[in-house]
Amino acid sequence: MQQALELARKAVEIGEVPVGAILVKDDTCIAATHNLREQSGNPIAHAEVLAIQEASQTLGNWRLTDTTLYVTLEPCPMCAGAIVLSRIPKVVYGASDPKAGSAGTLYNIVQDERLNHQVELVSGVCAEESSALLKSFFKNRR
Amino acid sequence: MQQALELARKAVEIGEVPVGAILVKDDTCIAATHNLREQSGNPIAHAEVLAIQEASQTLGNWRLTDTTLYVTLEPCPMCAGAIVLSRIPKVVYGASDPKAGSAGTLYNIVQDERLNHQVELVSGVCAEESSALLKSFFKNRR
Repeated sequence: MQQALELARKAVEIGEVPVGAILVKDDTCIAATHNLREQSGNPIAHAEVLAIQEASQTLGNWRLTDTTLYVTLEPCPMCAGAIVLSRIPKVVYGASDPKAGSAGTLYNIVQDERLNHQVELVSGVCAEESSALLKSFFKNRR
Repeated sequence: MQQALELARKAVEIGEVPVGAILVKDDTCIAATHNLREQSGNPIAHAEVLAIQEASQTLGNWRLTDTTLYVTLEPCPMCAGAIVLSRIPKVVYGASDPKAGSAGTLYNIVQDERLNHQVELVSGVCAEESSALLKSFFKNRR
């Protein structure tokens, strides 16, 4: 999670919302990303989606079996849906997101038994650091 | 919707799940896509997400204001989330999806007032044609 926080800090430097993500398989980092919506002009360029795309390209497979996703903020509906679609077995996240959180807050899409994949979930890891980064970013942008 | 169905038929020809999407702005088609998960090896390559990426690149803006998305199948959680994030004001879809539909069936993410954008929704347009295409595809794949 410290690596993901480091990426979130890098996002701030280029004016992006500070959310970082790391995808790990067999103790190896296979994707390291942060938000890129503004720079890329792409509304779906959230850290998690970029990590999933990077990892599936690296592995040459859309199924990200035996991986763990570390992300500094609770995934939104889009990212939670992407996590289910890519069959990521475990997600560790930092701060909860009261506005769009879809791994326990507004929804729990990643553990919905009506969908065809459920995720093991760990929340609140380095939550304060993650939350402080976001608060400071939005305060400075006002 | 006929154009979107035509794209869904093209998807079948290359072994992809037959879902097609069209994004229209000021009576002009700015994106025309179909599912590409298998060929691209990318778990997020659903028709809607690809249309959103194509359109935002064409417009040079992640906000897809004044657009209408036509898609042959009800969006899944990921695509519904992506529609909200890209601020698409109107979505017209064909068949409902009992397994993952997130525009009225399992969830209604695109009209959730807790999120920061809500979508005008029209459903059931050419639903039978869309549904028949999907059923025939999965029957032949077994």
